[in-house]
Amino acid sequence: MPTTITQIETYDVRFPTSLTLAGSDAMHPDPDYSAAYVILHTDSPGLEGHGLTFTIGRGNELCVAAIHSLAPFVVGQRLEEIVADFGRYWDRLTNDGQLRWVGPEKGVLHLATAAVINALWDLWAKAVGKPVWKLLADLTPEEIVRLVPFRHITDALTPDEALHLLRQQAPTRAERERELFRSGYPCYTTSAGWLGYSDEQVAALARQAIDQGFTAIKMKVGQDLAHDRARAALLRQVIGPDRKLMMDANQRWDVPQAIAWMRELAEFDPWWIEEPTHPDDVLGHKAIAEAIAPIGVATGEHVANRVVFKQLLASGAIRFCQIDACRLGGVNEVIAVLLMAAKFGVPVCPHAGGVGLCEYVQHLSMFDYIAVSGSLEHRMIEHVDHLHEHFVDPVTVRNARYLPPQRPGYSIEMKRESLEQYRWPDGPVWRELRQRAPASEQR
Amino acid sequence: MPTTITQIETYDVRFPTSLTLAGSDAMHPDPDYSAAYVILHTDSPGLEGHGLTFTIGRGNELCVAAIHSLAPFVVGQRLEEIVADFGRYWDRLTNDGQLRWVGPEKGVLHLATAAVINALWDLWAKAVGKPVWKLLADLTPEEIVRLVPFRHITDALTPDEALHLLRQQAPTRAERERELFRSGYPCYTTSAGWLGYSDEQVAALARQAIDQGFTAIKMKVGQDLAHDRARAALLRQVIGPDRKLMMDANQRWDVPQAIAWMRELAEFDPWWIEEPTHPDDVLGHKAIAEAIAPIGVATGEHVANRVVFKQLLASGAIRFCQIDACRLGGVNEVIAVLLMAAKFGVPVCPHAGGVGLCEYVQHLSMFDYIAVSGSLEHRMIEHVDHLHEHFVDPVTVRNARYLPPQRPGYSIEMKRESLEQYRWPDGPVWRELRQRAPASEQR
Repeated sequence: MPTTITQIETYDVRFPTSLTLAGSDAMHPDPDYSAAYVILHTDSPGLEGHGLTFTIGRGNELCVAAIHSLAPFVVGQRLEEIVADFGRYWDRLTNDGQLRWVGPEKGVLHLATAAVINALWDLWAKAVGKPVWKLLADLTPEEIVRLVPFRHITDALTPDEALHLLRQQAPTRAERERELFRSGYPCYTTSAGWLGYSDEQVAALARQAIDQGFTAIKMKVGQDLAHDRARAALLRQVIGPDRKLMMDANQRWDVPQAIAWMRELAEFDPWWIEEPTHPDDVLGHKAIAEAIAPIGVATGEHVANRVVFKQLLASGAIRFCQIDACRLGGVNEVIAVLLMAAKFGVPVCPHAGGVGLCEYVQHLSMFDYIAVSGSLEHRMIEHVDHLHEHFVDPVTVRNARYLPPQRPGYSIEMKRESLEQYRWPDGPVWRELRQRAPASEQR
Repeated sequence: MPTTITQIETYDVRFPTSLTLAGSDAMHPDPDYSAAYVILHTDSPGLEGHGLTFTIGRGNELCVAAIHSLAPFVVGQRLEEIVADFGRYWDRLTNDGQLRWVGPEKGVLHLATAAVINALWDLWAKAVGKPVWKLLADLTPEEIVRLVPFRHITDALTPDEALHLLRQQAPTRAERERELFRSGYPCYTTSAGWLGYSDEQVAALARQAIDQGFTAIKMKVGQDLAHDRARAALLRQVIGPDRKLMMDANQRWDVPQAIAWMRELAEFDPWWIEEPTHPDDVLGHKAIAEAIAPIGVATGEHVANRVVFKQLLASGAIRFCQIDACRLGGVNEVIAVLLMAAKFGVPVCPHAGGVGLCEYVQHLSMFDYIAVSGSLEHRMIEHVDHLHEHFVDPVTVRNARYLPPQRPGYSIEMKRESLEQYRWPDGPVWRELRQRAPASEQR
C-alpha cells in the first residue's frame, strides 16, 4: 500500500533554558532551546513522520513559517516516489526557482528544509520498521549514492568516488554493526562547561562526568581570557593530563584574535578549538589551523551546507567535521558531507548540544561507522544531558557511549504533552512564566 | 527635535513578471519580482523611512515575517542615537543572542536586516534633507569608519586601514562629485538578454540598447551550451567586436562544468562570467578564475555577507565585485565591502536586476566613486529597464549613465498605489490574475 502525505502540522516549541544558563556561551548568553517541529500526516493509519529543526529561541517562528512555505513540495506526494529518487527530490526542494532566492541552502529556509527532510526520513524508517541508522546500513552502495545531492560538489566528490568509498566498507559492515551493539558509540560531554556556570558547578559536573566514564569534556571560551585560563586550569586539574579537553568559542573571535587567544590557552593542551571565528570563513579557519597546530580546528554547527563543508574539508581548514543534523538540509545532505569527510580523512564528530540533536546524530554517526568511514578513531558524538525527557525514544548513554536506538524512525518524536506544554507563546509553561516575571523581563 | 521610531508597517509586494519571462535565467525560470517592504513611522510629522528587500516571489512572506522579528530592535529607538554609533547598532541587530542562530548574517534574516537598515538610512537621509549618496559623501573619514561593522573582517581590513583609504580620497571628493553631475555614472544593460526571450526579441533589444548609448550588454547562459553559443554569436554580431559582452550563469554549474563551458564560450570574448557556480564556493570561484583567465569572474548578488566577500576579494577569486544593496545587510555592511574592494583593487559593479535595486545601488556606486575607490575604471552599474514606474523617485539614465538622484532619501520609496495594487496575495492585480488563470496554473 503506497503512503501519501496528506497534511503538515507544525509546532513552535521553546524550553526556558535561559533561566538556568544551560547552553550559555560567548555569543549566545541566554538561549531558550527551541524546535520548529513538523508532523507529516499520511493516509496510512497510524503512520506519521516527525522532524524538527533546532534553534535557540527568537527566530524559531521564522523556521515554522518556512516549513509552511515548503509544504506544497510535500503534501500530496507519495513517500515511495520520494524515496525512490531521494537525491533528486532533495535537489528539487532546495532549488525551487523562486524560493531559493531567500537561501539558497542557508539560514531560515535551509533549517526548515532539514525539519521537512528529516520528517520524511522518520516516516520512511517507520514505514519499513527500522531505525534510520539501520535503514541506511541495509542499503546497497548504489542505493546510498542515489540519496546524495551532488550538485556543486563534484569537484570534490563524484558519484563514482562515493560508490567506490561505500563499496570498500560494504563487506565488513556486519562486523561493525555487532561492535556497536556490543560497545556503543563513544561520546564526550558539554554539560559541565557552560559559560554561565560557577566554578563550583563546573568542577562538580566535571567530576561527575569522570565518574560516568567520560574521557573527554568540552568547555566554552571566548568572553574573557583571564576567565578562560582560570577555567581551563580548573578543568585540567579535575580531569587530569590524559583526558581530552576541548574548547568552544562559538564564533566569538576575529582571525588574529583567535590565534592570539589560543596561544594563551595552548598550555592547557586543548584537543580542539571549536568555532574559533565566523562559520562562513573558510580561509579564516585555514589560517587559524595553520597558526595553532597541533591544536585542531573544529567547526560545523553553523556551516550552512555541503558547499561550505566541501571547502573546509578539501583545503585542510578543519581537523574535526562537526555536522549538524538540521543545519545541513537533513539526512541526504549529511551523507554528502560524511562521504567527503571520509574521502579527505577528516573524522566526523557531530554537534549535539541543543534539543533533539543527540537523538538525531546518533543515527548519523552509527551509519558513518558502519558504512562510510568504517572507523571510530578520533570520533565522538557530543552529549548534553538535558531535555531528553521530552522524547518518546530518548538516547541511551552508558559509560560514555551511545547505544544503538532500536525503535523504528529517527528518534526525534516528542511527546504530545511536551509539544503542548512548551508551545510558544501560549503553552501553559510560557503563560505561567509570564505571570511570574516582572513586566520588564517579559519575553 | 529628536525623532523616535514609533511603528513598523510592512507590505508583501509582488509583480507578475513571470508572465513575460523578464528576469528569467538558468536557475530562476519564472521569477515574480517582489519586495518585502517596510515603512518606519516616527513621531516627527511627515517623516518616514522606507526600505525593501528584493526577492523573486515565493519566500517573500518569510522576509516580511523576519522584518517583524527584528521590530523590537527598532521600534521605540531614537534615530539620532542609532546613527551616532551606527556600526555598533548594526552589530547588535545582527548579533542578538537568540536570533542570530537562524542566520547568522545570511538568508531570510539577513535579507530582512537589509530592509530595516536601509529604511533607517532612508529615514536619516530624509531627516537631514539629502540623498543617501550625498549624506555619505559629506561625512568625514572618521565618521564613515564608525558606520562600518568590522567584526570578522579585521584580518583583511582594520579600522586604521579603512581610515587611511578614506583620507587618501578626501581632498579630491568635490572634483568627482562635479564629474558625476556633469556626466553621470556608467552602466550596462541586462534587459536584452533574458533567457526566456526569443532571438528576435534579443536582437531587437540589443540594437535598441546600442541606440541608447550602451557599450556593454549582459546575457544569460547555462541552460544549454548550443543555445548559449548561438545566442552569444548573435549578440556579438549585433554589438560588434568593441562593445563589452558579459555572461551570467546564475549559479548553474559545478566547478569543472563552469570551466569547460566557458572554454566553449571564450571565442565570443566575454568580459566576465557572473555567478559561474554556488555563491558560497569561494575556492570554487578561485579555481574557475585561474582556469579561464583572462575572462574575469564576477559574483555578489547571492554573496551572503562581508565575510564571504572578504575571502573572494583577498584570495583573488573574483575580478568584479557585485555588491547587492539588500543581500548584504544594508548600507553599513556594503561600506565594509566597498572598503575591502578598494584595498584589494577589485572594481565594484553592483547587481541591480530586480525591483528597486537600480534605485538603491546608484547611491552606493556614487559614494564609492566620490569617497572610497575614487575611480570609474572597469566600473559599471547594472541597469534593467522595468518596474521603475512604481517608485516616487525613479532612476534617471541618460546615454547609458545614471544621473545623481537629488531628492532626500534612498530613492526606494514606492508609490502607495503600487503597494496596494500589487500586495500579495489579495491586491487587485493578483485577485484578477487568479480569476483569469485556469485552476491548474493558480499561484
